Amino acid sequence: MPQGKPEVTPDDGLTTRERRRQPVLAVHTGQGKGKSTAAFGMALRAWSAGWSIVVYQFVKSPKWRVGEEAALRALGETGKGGAVTWHKMGEGWSWIQRPGTERDHAAEAAEGWAQIKRDLAAEAYRFYVLDEFTYPMKWGWVDVADVVATLRDRPGSQHVVVTGRDAHADIVAAADLVTDMTKVKHPMDAGRKGQQGIEW
Amino acid sequence: MPQGKPEVTPDDGLTTRERRRQPVLAVHTGQGKGKSTAAFGMALRAWSAGWSIVVYQFVKSPKWRVGEEAALRALGETGKGGAVTWHKMGEGWSWIQRPGTERDHAAEAAEGWAQIKRDLAAEAYRFYVLDEFTYPMKWGWVDVADVVATLRDRPGSQHVVVTGRDAHADIVAAADLVTDMTKVKHPMDAGRKGQQGIEW
Repeated sequence: MPQGKPEVTPDDGLTTRERRRQPVLAVHTGQGKGKSTAAFGMALRAWSAGWSIVVYQFVKSPKWRVGEEAALRALGETGKGGAVTWHKMGEGWSWIQRPGTERDHAAEAAEGWAQIKRDLAAEAYRFYVLDEFTYPMKWGWVDVADVVATLRDRPGSQHVVVTGRDAHADIVAAADLVTDMTKVKHPMDAGRKGQQGIEW
Repeated sequence: MPQGKPEVTPDDGLTTRERRRQPVLAVHTGQGKGKSTAAFGMALRAWSAGWSIVVYQFVKSPKWRVGEEAALRALGETGKGGAVTWHKMGEGWSWIQRPGTERDHAAEAAEGWAQIKRDLAAEAYRFYVLDEFTYPMKWGWVDVADVVATLRDRPGSQHVVVTGRDAHADIVAAADLVTDMTKVKHPMDAGRKGQQGIEW
């Protein structure tokens, strides 16, 4: 309920209005729930602002995020807010035709990142969710220095949210907004199963 | 990307399917961003599951959450998922007609909670967001013991998410899922303003 107020007024020559329009790089990390969920919640605001949205889902299983995907796609289809594009690594990126081959997750992740670079260079979208992208960074599937430099130097007013555990220190350093979702208590600790409608 | 597995299998006589359908009481607390945003992200899954959704927004300013409200209302209007109901304390609860009187926030919060109790008793919805409800609890505007007992003993399969800083220890104890959104870095620390499309 309390409204945040800046603790410092920067000497950057910008007006308040200009400062409200600076692109944001956000990281949601930590062991708790809500990292991706909050990113998709942010997408609701982006949609409402009329921004084009893209989700890159760096997960193996296509089962996850089905609810969020259905809801955000439905929002995009209303035509009242921003358009919504959703890419899933779990089914093979849709722009790559490669039927019948065995999937290589490292190569797929690198292909996803290459497409994100192209999108950023073209200013293809206003709001990017790079869901679970901390893992390809952690596992060396993408070059961390390249990711950080590309995101830092991205043109225009493109907002980016990166989610996942164990965010690399360099992307934390480069980000404007970093939240650690800290697990206090989880139903699975007491042996409860993931809940339909809650977990997916 | 890693999938959670229960650490314990409870001796509760329930099947896995039954355990997947237990109602959840979640609390999103902490000083960081994403508490409400993650609750609205959970609402995307609830919508997709066809659940009726209600939001009780315990905030003074009607400015906040405008993007989320517009998006969730638009989702509700598609008719493809669950219906969406949104109550705002900031404009006076819509079910109370009291034009021209000076508003008393404590009384308004108590009226909001009284309506939530009626809704829970009637099993009026499947998914509740009690946004910023930790503050009325903290400030003594509602009775904490009553809140905890009512939520603990709620009938049927009603999921509830409570958001806000400084969650009372008793609701943390009663909850199934508690996440602390911990601030690591925020743009306002560096004097940046809230960003349209990001903060609201």
